[in-house]
Formats: sequence, structure tokens, C-alpha cells
Amino acid sequence: MRLYINDVAVRDGFQIEKTFIPTKTKVEVIDQLSRTGLHKIEVTSFVSAKAVPALADANEVLSAIERVPGVLYVVLVPNIRGVQNAAATAKKPDEVNGVMSASETHNRANINRTHEQSLAELPTMVKVAHEAGMKISMSLSTTFGCPFEGHVAEDVVLRFVEAYRNAGVDAISLADTTGMANPRQVEDLTRKVLERFPAPDETFYTLHFHNTRGMGLANVVAGIAAGVRSFDGSISGLGGCPFAPGATGNICTEDMVNMLEDMGYDTRVDLAKLLAVARNIPAIVGHEVPGQVMKAGVTMHLHDLPEYLRT
Amino acid sequence: MRLYINDVAVRDGFQIEKTFIPTKTKVEVIDQLSRTGLHKIEVTSFVSAKAVPALADANEVLSAIERVPGVLYVVLVPNIRGVQNAAATAKKPDEVNGVMSASETHNRANINRTHEQSLAELPTMVKVAHEAGMKISMSLSTTFGCPFEGHVAEDVVLRFVEAYRNAGVDAISLADTTGMANPRQVEDLTRKVLERFPAPDETFYTLHFHNTRGMGLANVVAGIAAGVRSFDGSISGLGGCPFAPGATGNICTEDMVNMLEDMGYDTRVDLAKLLAVARNIPAIVGHEVPGQVMKAGVTMHLHDLPEYLRT
Repeated sequence: MRLYINDVAVRDGFQIEKTFIPTKTKVEVIDQLSRTGLHKIEVTSFVSAKAVPALADANEVLSAIERVPGVLYVVLVPNIRGVQNAAATAKKPDEVNGVMSASETHNRANINRTHEQSLAELPTMVKVAHEAGMKISMSLSTTFGCPFEGHVAEDVVLRFVEAYRNAGVDAISLADTTGMANPRQVEDLTRKVLERFPAPDETFYTLHFHNTRGMGLANVVAGIAAGVRSFDGSISGLGGCPFAPGATGNICTEDMVNMLEDMGYDTRVDLAKLLAVARNIPAIVGHEVPGQVMKAGVTMHLHDLPEYLRT
Repeated sequence: MRLYINDVAVRDGFQIEKTFIPTKTKVEVIDQLSRTGLHKIEVTSFVSAKAVPALADANEVLSAIERVPGVLYVVLVPNIRGVQNAAATAKKPDEVNGVMSASETHNRANINRTHEQSLAELPTMVKVAHEAGMKISMSLSTTFGCPFEGHVAEDVVLRFVEAYRNAGVDAISLADTTGMANPRQVEDLTRKVLERFPAPDETFYTLHFHNTRGMGLANVVAGIAAGVRSFDGSISGLGGCPFAPGATGNICTEDMVNMLEDMGYDTRVDLAKLLAVARNIPAIVGHEVPGQVMKAGVTMHLHDLPEYLRT
């Protein structure tokens, strides 16, 4: 079975690093990722440079990367202004990824809007993106739980998916923003979404998990069982959790690919190339990263016999 | 659904620490774990003190711990000598856990015996254990893959399970010794084992996973789907992988319990107490540990609103 793997490290991971990652380095990492067989790469964000100085070089990154045919280059946009900036840049992304939160409190905290304000702006976001020849995907943060409110009602998620579909978005990402999802919940809720609003194509729905409580890859398996075929990860597990210093953020892309390939799925990703990119990340960011396979080797990386058995 | 959770940190985790963990500390950790609702605690090992100096205090540990009714105290034994030592100690464990490897090479590397030698010794191990009033469980290392040989044939695993059953063991643990199992494989192979050799009771089969490549909790979910109800973990994720410095070893007990309780399973484990034990471990061993929930908090640990939203 074909699965589609996306990487968000350059945006979601580099964004929280304390030291600015040079534009040249970002471009190098993106260009390396472009040759690994990934489906989408989230390359930067059109947000306020004051709010997120780490991604102030969005235009430069988009201009400098070498685009590989077949790869979708995505830019995060928190609002209509972000879509307009993406539309106005010299080298536009293939897709803008808008974001709202299923939790009203998180929506206000993250993008300073009520649900009503966010949804009112959505049709214009879609219109501006499409008129500029860009696709637009919409993420739904805190789909599986909110760090402020806790439980998020399934009905709220279903209403957002309906609103996204009615607005004519090209793709929807259900995001477990702070790693609160568990496999049973993922399978149940995702199944409901897909039954009520069937996917027009294999990559329409993406699941975006965090490994904050160690359940990330278990949730991927649950998402496949529910029928989703597209998953986000972050190379080397780069990222974090704003609420818990030291906690893990996004699931690790190469750990996910290693698991999925072991399970017999076809990700089209070259795991060796992906690992080569991952192994450069600690030097770039100057600290350890959560990726497991980059330390342990792929599953079938075998070891020499102990000396006393070599007879 | 009731699940049974076992902890192996004091044996499997402390055993690879470079500095000797004082007997008093081991006893304190075991006594704390005894009050968390765990089913089994693996407290030490009767192995050569030369081979594993970290556990040279097996007799002292067994004498000093305070045993809580309902908890099974387990000691690892690599061979008949280990069973005899356990039988001869002043305060015997409830259960000895013997170990063989599905891979012939790993069996020789780990316990210096061929498969034939190991299996020939098994009936005597069972006899000595039972005559001493101890239960005996048998682990099968490298059930899901061998770091030297790679793929392990399912037939070999099934033959070992048959031999274990024929020898009259009280429990069987299928162990993913170096984290090579994937969820599909776990579900398939475990289902075959349970179909061919049905469990006489809920705790007869245990699955022992490592998180070496990040798949540990996904494998637990797969094992439950296949019908297993008992799982090993290591508090705070203590442990490691002898083949990959920096790689993770055993899955983290409290991360597993957090996931299972979120999924609605009944582990009977007091997660808050378990976390309190886990949070002491870094100070005991003097380094960081892989546990995620101890850093992020349990799933429903909510956070204060950002200041600008507190109006």
C-alpha cells in the first residue's frame, strides 16, 4: 500500500531553535530532502518576523531552493495576510497551509482569533490562494486534545472539517499539536471524519502527530487502520513542545519511514538518504535530537559477532 | 479490559550502568515500585558476578526488599546454575525467568550455549524451580529479529514456544531484544503463537519490547490486538542497547501506562506514583533517561493560559 510522507522540520523544527539557522543551511537541508522521495516539504512560514524571527527569511528560502518535480513545497500561513504574502512572493510555494485550532482557547493563543473570525476569513484565504495558482491545505490544531482545555469534542472537529470542505480547500491536516492523541482515539475519530467526509484522493487527509508522550508512531499505525495515507514527520525528530521544556515534538520522519517500510508499506522514500540528512541535524542545531534510527541504525543493520564467537 | 504491567528497570536498566547502584538504592526503588500496582517486578539476576558486577548483590537485594502481597518478584536466570542459586537463597523470588534466544548466534553470544544445550537443560531448570516452590517463566530473546542474523523464522519461534510449553513452564515472554519488531510482525506472529498454543491464563504470555527504533508503544498496541495482556517496561525508559551507544532500550513503563489508560484499558497501575519513581531515576543514574511523560506530564496535564489571554 502506497503511503505519502511529508516533512516539516525546516519550518516546525528550525522555528523554535534559539540560534538563527542561516538561510543557506535551510536551503541545503530542503534541497537534500527534495531528493529523498518525500511527498511534501514544509519549507517556511509567512508569519510576522517579529513573532517568529527564525523564519524571517521566507522569501529568500523560497527563491533559493531547487524544486524537484513531484515534490510539493508548502508554506505555513496563519491568516489571510500570510496567503497574500505567499501569493506576492517571487517564487510561490505550491501550497499554503493555513491553520486553525479545534480548541477556541488555543485558536486565540496561537493565531489571536476567535473561531468565528478564523472561519469568516477562510473563503478569502482559499480564493486568494487559488487565484495565485497555489493549493491551500488547512490544518486543524488540537484535534485530539488541547493543552489549555483538555478534551476536544469530536463534533467540533467534524464541524471544522465540514467548514474546510465547504470552503473548497485542497487538503486537510488533523494535528495532534501537543501529543495528546492515543491510538484508540485516532482510529475512532479519524474513521468518523473519513466516513462523514470521504477523501476525494489519497493525500486529501494528512495526520500530523507529535511524540510528546511516546505515542507518535502508534498513532500513525492507528491512522493507517482508519484509512489515512499521508503523514507528517520532522527529520531527526527536530522540534519540541512549548509547554514542556525537554519534551519531544513532531514524530521523527525517518523513524516513521523505517517502521512503515518494515511493515511492508510503500513510502517511496529512500531511507538511507533520509538518514544522511538526519545525521547532519545535530551539528546544525548544536544539540541532541530525538531520532532513534539515526542512533541505532535501520532495523536490518546487522552487527559483527562478538570476538569469542568468531572462530 | 484488564492489562498486566511488569517492570524490569532494576535488573535490565541498572545492569548496564557504569557506576554500581548501591544495594540500598535498588531496594528503595523496588519498594517504591511495589506500591504502584505493577504485576511483576524483575528485581535482580543470578548471573556470574564477574560477567555482571552490577548485580552481584542479588542475595542482599532479595533479602532486603519489602514484599507486597499480589506483586510477583522475579529474578533473571541464564541457566540451571542460576535456578539453583535462586532456590538456595534465603528469601527466594516468586519466579525465576530463564532466557534463551530464538537466534542460535545470539543464544551463543548471550548465554554461551547452543540451542540444543539450552533446551536439554530446560526440564531440569523447571524441576529445580518447582521443587523450590518458585514459578518459572521462560523468555525467548530475539523473537522478532537478531542483531547478528537478521530475520528470525517464525517456525523457530513456534518450536521454542512448544518446547517451553512441553517443559511445563508457568509463563512465556516473547522478547524483542534489540528493538527490531514492527507492529504488523508483532500482530501476525503473536497471533500465530496464541492460536497454536492458547494461553492458559491472561498472564501466561508477556511481550517484552524495546524502543530502539521508536516502535515500542506501537508494538504494545499490536500485541493487545493479537490477544496478549501482559507487557514489560522499564521505569523512566532506563536501559540501553549494547550494539548502539546512545540508542534506547526497554520501552518506558510509565509512558506505556499513560497510553494504555488513555486508551481505556485497566492497568491497575497508579500512574502518579509510577511517575514519582521515574522522576528520581536520573538523579540515581546520573544521566538523562528516555521517558517522555516524565518530561511532558500526563496527557491531561493542562497548562495555564498565556498571560495576554488572561483577561
